[in-house]
Amino acid sequence: MRFKFAIPALLLEVIIIVLFGIFVEYDKESISDHLYPHFQDVHVMIFVGFGFLMTFLKKYGFSSVGINMLIAAFGLQWGTLMQGLWHMKAGKIHVNFKSIINADFSTATALISFGAVLGKTTPIQMLILTILEITIFACNEHLVTEIFEATDVGASMTIHAFGAYFGLAVALVLYRPGLNNKHENDESTYHSDLFAMIGSLFLWLFWPSFNSAIAPDASSQRIAIINTYYSLAACTIITFALSSLVDQRGKFSMVLIQNATLAGGVAVGTCADLPIHPFLAMCIGIIAGIVSVLGFHFLTPVLASKLHIQDTCGVHNLHGLPGILGGIAGIIVTAVKGGTRDIPFTPGKQAAALGSTLGIALAGGALTGAILKLPFLGQVSDQHCFDDSVYWEVPEEENAHEIHSNNPDEHSRFEAAV
Amino acid sequence: MRFKFAIPALLLEVIIIVLFGIFVEYDKESISDHLYPHFQDVHVMIFVGFGFLMTFLKKYGFSSVGINMLIAAFGLQWGTLMQGLWHMKAGKIHVNFKSIINADFSTATALISFGAVLGKTTPIQMLILTILEITIFACNEHLVTEIFEATDVGASMTIHAFGAYFGLAVALVLYRPGLNNKHENDESTYHSDLFAMIGSLFLWLFWPSFNSAIAPDASSQRIAIINTYYSLAACTIITFALSSLVDQRGKFSMVLIQNATLAGGVAVGTCADLPIHPFLAMCIGIIAGIVSVLGFHFLTPVLASKLHIQDTCGVHNLHGLPGILGGIAGIIVTAVKGGTRDIPFTPGKQAAALGSTLGIALAGGALTGAILKLPFLGQVSDQHCFDDSVYWEVPEEENAHEIHSNNPDEHSRFEAAV
Amino acid sequence: MRFKFAIPALLLEVIIIVLFGIFVEYDKESISDHLYPHFQDVHVMIFVGFGFLMTFLKKYGFSSVGINMLIAAFGLQWGTLMQGLWHMKAGKIHVNFKSIINADFSTATALISFGAVLGKTTPIQMLILTILEITIFACNEHLVTEIFEATDVGASMTIHAFGAYFGLAVALVLYRPGLNNKHENDESTYHSDLFAMIGSLFLWLFWPSFNSAIAPDASSQRIAIINTYYSLAACTIITFALSSLVDQRGKFSMVLIQNATLAGGVAVGTCADLPIHPFLAMCIGIIAGIVSVLGFHFLTPVLASKLHIQDTCGVHNLHGLPGILGGIAGIIVTAVKGGTRDIPFTPGKQAAALGSTLGIALAGGALTGAILKLPFLGQVSDQHCFDDSVYWEVPEEENAHEIHSNNPDEHSRFEAAV
Repeated sequence: MRFKFAIPALLLEVIIIVLFGIFVEYDKESISDHLYPHFQDVHVMIFVGFGFLMTFLKKYGFSSVGINMLIAAFGLQWGTLMQGLWHMKAGKIHVNFKSIINADFSTATALISFGAVLGKTTPIQMLILTILEITIFACNEHLVTEIFEATDVGASMTIHAFGAYFGLAVALVLYRPGLNNKHENDESTYHSDLFAMIGSLFLWLFWPSFNSAIAPDASSQRIAIINTYYSLAACTIITFALSSLVDQRGKFSMVLIQNATLAGGVAVGTCADLPIHPFLAMCIGIIAGIVSVLGFHFLTPVLASKLHIQDTCGVHNLHGLPGILGGIAGIIVTAVKGGTRDIPFTPGKQAAALGSTLGIALAGGALTGAILKLPFLGQVSDQHCFDDSVYWEVPEEENAHEIHSNNPDEHSRFEAAV
Repeated sequence: MRFKFAIPALLLEVIIIVLFGIFVEYDKESISDHLYPHFQDVHVMIFVGFGFLMTFLKKYGFSSVGINMLIAAFGLQWGTLMQGLWHMKAGKIHVNFKSIINADFSTATALISFGAVLGKTTPIQMLILTILEITIFACNEHLVTEIFEATDVGASMTIHAFGAYFGLAVALVLYRPGLNNKHENDESTYHSDLFAMIGSLFLWLFWPSFNSAIAPDASSQRIAIINTYYSLAACTIITFALSSLVDQRGKFSMVLIQNATLAGGVAVGTCADLPIHPFLAMCIGIIAGIVSVLGFHFLTPVLASKLHIQDTCGVHNLHGLPGILGGIAGIIVTAVKGGTRDIPFTPGKQAAALGSTLGIALAGGALTGAILKLPFLGQVSDQHCFDDSVYWEVPEEENAHEIHSNNPDEHSRFEAAV
Repeated sequence: MRFKFAIPALLLEVIIIVLFGIFVEYDKESISDHLYPHFQDVHVMIFVGFGFLMTFLKKYGFSSVGINMLIAAFGLQWGTLMQGLWHMKAGKIHVNFKSIINADFSTATALISFGAVLGKTTPIQMLILTILEITIFACNEHLVTEIFEATDVGASMTIHAFGAYFGLAVALVLYRPGLNNKHENDESTYHSDLFAMIGSLFLWLFWPSFNSAIAPDASSQRIAIINTYYSLAACTIITFALSSLVDQRGKFSMVLIQNATLAGGVAVGTCADLPIHPFLAMCIGIIAGIVSVLGFHFLTPVLASKLHIQDTCGVHNLHGLPGILGGIAGIIVTAVKGGTRDIPFTPGKQAAALGSTLGIALAGGALTGAILKLPFLGQVSDQHCFDDSVYWEVPEEENAHEIHSNNPDEHSRFEAAV
């Protein structure tokens, strides 16, 4: 893999820098300077939140947090260009704090898709996925916000549903029958679950910033923060209750606490900045929690066995279904209250935005999956899935110890002495 | 435990949402919009700070960070209602960033009490404790700030001392003679202590935001931040020095570094926003460090053996004693400099605030402990204290490995082959 | 070590508090109030970033994050005094948010030097180093900014190069021939590398705040943030590519991902707030990544074997070389564009700043190393290097388990039964 990764990665970075040299300028206006704290929160979500959330696998922590960093650092450069192309002034992309928030946002789509295929792809495959997905995302986002003029301030549709269904389509194309029986490394350890809670909590805590970062004014921003805050809180209680209820012995499941507690942030995204009332935000959060828990418990196994979609992190339940729920909430809210000064959006355009997002994500993901399957890119074998040591220098001692204490020769030595 | 937790939790959430529907509105004023960065810091303290600080126990990390999240997510909703009831306008609670800071604050009381009984209660007991404690806290806080008109900007009294003595009273009522000999799970591992340092550091770092978040103006806020910054720094040096001094071999103790370094933030809270001079703030920090280290080293064992108060995390030394110290500092400062335009508070009212807080906390905690002891709620057995596997699906492999390598049958197999 | 650490530490803290009482006042102006979010980001970098970055060693995590906290909490007090002495008004040091940012900054020098000698010094040696280094740093910084009037907004020279070469000079004086063969504890474990990623990511994420915190106005601040954001992103891709390229099997190295990805933040520091164009910032980031990876891979072993400089964390590659690169970039940028209203700096003064920084750092470090070698201070033996248990109460159980399962007597017992 030495040259297979390094040479294309170096080439891509050179191309990006040349494009930056040609197209990118500082924005001289101070119009988004007040968004810096929001940006920093989103930045932490992308690198620490997404990165550590995926460290739950026992032997895939380096890749989770490391390749997450690679995708995000690469994607934010590519996203700056792809999103900037739609908003050029005099042939230049002017970057300010809103641009870098949007650049970080665009990487979230690739990171969500990474969750669907976690443990089953190579780093170079992920770079290609990132390029394709962010390019398609930028087009769909333009379609949703500029052509359909739909609202989606927290990006339930354009990021969460998009990233999830794109990733699921990739996972379908890259289906591995050899993983139908649970892979021995496809599970967590006690400490890997605690690392994952670091990611989960920073996502949970800064989600109000995510949903409000690009709200049009201070009042909308305040509403988005408050709605997201209460939606997440309500969703969390429901997740704990249902996690206990769906388990035969009534025990909580770390998978659910790490993931389904966040569904309330996803689902309230589309109408987060609309004055829907905290009460309604909490109702959305509760439905999201129910959908997400049931999805993890009942749907994910069926997707894998019947539809051949192996979704490592269950992104369908954290981003996919709650993202659709967010889109539907947007349709209902605009149908009931839309067309006023407060809410100048229409249900038809919201529905078009949701439909286009799902269609483009599925088609784009299938296409991307087909490209990632090209033989010259190489594939990791089923046996080496979910294993850092394929791509990383991994410290030996823990394995050494394990081998040591289970080594029959070790015992033989003593027995021979007898 | 399947229905015993899930059904009451679902019911409580439904009740809360109905109350939100009836009483809660967005605040349309932008008066507290500038507090958003402060809010985010406090939010991190509550969920990451408190949550990870308690992960030091070797087999109770899931519960520490998980049940902490449950309590906080539930408590912030309940706290919004309980605190809002005292400040309704036209029958409505108007939520803004100050409200959600206060909602997060109110959960801190329950989380501090959680530290006192950590490992010895069930999730449903903790939900009941949260409801009762936040309700009583909101009444006491109203008494302190509105009736006594005392100052307590960083809540040394109303949150820290209150939460600690409430929790200690609960622990006294729930006394378990079976735990008098140290439980084998009531200790840390190397990595669990590192996880706890994540919590400790985020508390330490964001404490200036905690103590300044609800200061009345920008100048008070600046003073509160600077006082807390230097108080914590001085307290930290003293903690390291005394930690070495009280140990026979001169070694540092992780328990002290994780906890006593924070006492300076607690103790400077009451007069944090008063112009007491950084010098005095540092003196308060030093005294807090001394009191806290000595408390952990000498008092906690005595409390357990003589007074039957088993304080798992030593909240008495981190929140209780330093909270009282903060209250006393408030009395002294107002006695010396009070009644002026700079410091319009009086020592009598400060003393009344401290006394009422301690009395109400102890009585409320004792009452709550009695309720938690009701037989139908169920109790975890002494043997299963400090053990996640009672409430959580815990990954098997580590135990499996341990059993494996110690399993005589394993060896027998080889010996049979001989 | 009981009194050897505690008594001097207590004495030093008393002296500092007396000096605070005499010299320090609140700044009554609100001029730096808007910098609070920047301060909090820097604060997280110092305590969580630096602290956890060094937890990669398998048995030195307590010391890494704990002694880091000790140095930083002590250093920020000392730094307030040392930096304040150069800017007194009417005999008083007026502290505001800019002061506490600078106080945190000054500790970074000692923390960088700590990285060079990590595992090989005692806590009291580190306190002495902190006093000396921050004192010398404050003088050099005054020279660079006030006398030479050079620009160094992100402190590539005055903090990063200074801290690195100071630490390397100390390491040279404290050279330990006994460590020429790799010490068995001088390596990481799987989980210690994940803890280190927490530190690395928080440094990476908040570096834009570090480089912009003391920029002169909002526009410079915006430019510094954007330059740093893109420089780090470009540096990260290069680091991944080269990490794979320099490894024979093409595998990524955690050491490089944790460290060299940050070099872009260091190197862009000196001219971060100048309108050099994002393109140029990215080029600086790329060169920094190349220099840093090659430094870790080829230079560090040579420094240890030929020059007798044992640099535990490789600070030469993360802070030293990229810091010099930043200084050189400053010289080139001012040579090409300097002397205008946008960039009122000259290459000669920039070169003088770089030269004085390196010279003073090396001389100061050598002097400090000589002082730390004084016999009455004591030294840790080679055998006990990189081992927490010398200074900390360390939980026993993990070692116990290891001993247990490898214990021949254990097996003998079963064999006897045969």
